[in-house]
Amino acid sequence: MAVKGEFRTIDRIKNILLPSHRKDVKVGIGDDCSVLDVGLEKEYLLLGSDSIVDGRHFLYNIPDRSLIGRKAVGVVLSDVAAMGGYPLALTVDLGVPDYIESEHLEEIVFGMKFLLDLFDVDVVGGDTVKSDVLYLSVSVVGKVEKEKVVLRSGAKKSDWIWVSGPLGGSLYKRHLLVSPRIPEARFLVQNFHPTAMIDISDGLVRDLFHILEKSNVVAELVKDKIPVHKDARDWEEALYMGEDFELLFTLSEDESKRMMASIGSLLYRFYPIGKIVDGGAVGLYLRDGRSCYPLSPRGYEHF
Amino acid sequence: MAVKGEFRTIDRIKNILLPSHRKDVKVGIGDDCSVLDVGLEKEYLLLGSDSIVDGRHFLYNIPDRSLIGRKAVGVVLSDVAAMGGYPLALTVDLGVPDYIESEHLEEIVFGMKFLLDLFDVDVVGGDTVKSDVLYLSVSVVGKVEKEKVVLRSGAKKSDWIWVSGPLGGSLYKRHLLVSPRIPEARFLVQNFHPTAMIDISDGLVRDLFHILEKSNVVAELVKDKIPVHKDARDWEEALYMGEDFELLFTLSEDESKRMMASIGSLLYRFYPIGKIVDGGAVGLYLRDGRSCYPLSPRGYEHF
Repeated sequence: MAVKGEFRTIDRIKNILLPSHRKDVKVGIGDDCSVLDVGLEKEYLLLGSDSIVDGRHFLYNIPDRSLIGRKAVGVVLSDVAAMGGYPLALTVDLGVPDYIESEHLEEIVFGMKFLLDLFDVDVVGGDTVKSDVLYLSVSVVGKVEKEKVVLRSGAKKSDWIWVSGPLGGSLYKRHLLVSPRIPEARFLVQNFHPTAMIDISDGLVRDLFHILEKSNVVAELVKDKIPVHKDARDWEEALYMGEDFELLFTLSEDESKRMMASIGSLLYRFYPIGKIVDGGAVGLYLRDGRSCYPLSPRGYEHF
Repeated sequence: MAVKGEFRTIDRIKNILLPSHRKDVKVGIGDDCSVLDVGLEKEYLLLGSDSIVDGRHFLYNIPDRSLIGRKAVGVVLSDVAAMGGYPLALTVDLGVPDYIESEHLEEIVFGMKFLLDLFDVDVVGGDTVKSDVLYLSVSVVGKVEKEKVVLRSGAKKSDWIWVSGPLGGSLYKRHLLVSPRIPEARFLVQNFHPTAMIDISDGLVRDLFHILEKSNVVAELVKDKIPVHKDARDWEEALYMGEDFELLFTLSEDESKRMMASIGSLLYRFYPIGKIVDGGAVGLYLRDGRSCYPLSPRGYEHF
């Protein structure tokens, strides 16, 4: 979710639409999901949406088209995970060109169904329209306990930076095989207090910058600590390639030490990759042995 | 909302996705919005989405492009109205081709903003992606009091059939100028008890058939009672053209007489156009003087 891309028009669109003026909108445009207080005592509602388009985010001519449906649903469920929440229901809009064969469309929907069943989510509506290009636009409604919601804006000096899995090389094949880190996120918010969280879609560096900008802090990544996926051809892909759909989060130093102490015995494996070293400014450095380089927020550009 | 179109694939998609198995989904695919019981004491949540695509539902090359944004938002708000509810928040996915100019995209968003401000709705998220065709996919979250929600399935024998305004001729120009009948719908559910409701997007006859099928009843429309819009070139357009975005609803005979008695003094004007004449079967007839013709569910085909 969140209007993506380095594209000045998007900022102009945001400026037209912002600010949110409804009191029940706790967090509007600018996080992985929006947060709505609809009147529940203990929970907020989460709302998000994502689009994927043929030729941009997937290719229609792949052998297993169920992966297209899996990706469409996976990326939006990943947004819910990044808030610490869990999904309830989806709407699915399909833009379907004439050249799409019925069986292929069914394959795509079976790919959705796989994740729906896995996470107990229902498709409750949507729209199917003719279109010159195949697109899938999925919106999600989820929930999160009020005291457990995690935004991008809470990272503090001395917090440690963590990821939920190895990064890099996703675009060679893994990027369609999205496994939203909902169980991992729920485990995290139930046992720890992440101060900020995002899912890695644009790349570690770019998505970390989203946290740094919202939190107004400076971070240092430690090169040797970054888990590089076996699919990566180059370790820099772990920094910049994106579409990993792992969780990137910050934990206080105390909680980080508690997590380190139990690592190996935890249900899920998390990797500490750096620290928040300062507040009051935005910046990112990469420590490589005794050297330290500044990093800029380039990365895979989706738009 | 609701997966539309006479297209066997859509039925197959539905069959893959159905049934909804979550207990909190009161109404899933198949009404104007889905109805979720998320744990509020007095209200249900409404969820819906709609897509519009360049060359299918609008033309990018029109003088006033704000109407494109207005339509995208209007149709989904109209879905909320058709449930008797009111909208809270939207997500907007935009698929944007390279040939779209920034100023035009802003115009489109200003068209959205017009309806957002009118109905106190926030855009709280979305996704902007590159696409070979311009599309707008909008999802909505709304609310409705539990005892006021109106489905398509409640029409009963002897109910009268009503519409909220003149029909026909919309596609010549009015179809972009969507004015979601939210105030009308709220007035209705607060002062009467509609037994079934839908918004007219596919055409009076087709959309009435949706009510008749869900309610398992037979209806008779009275030709002379159907209000024909001045834009219509032919009275049959009132039956079949669609994109009127007026409310089509049924009221018990008693309530209908009560409405008739106060017509003219009510805040909004509604038009009685026929009656539910039988139950236990599905059918539709048009009474024209002493003649009576069966009608079939043809109409403007969106898909």
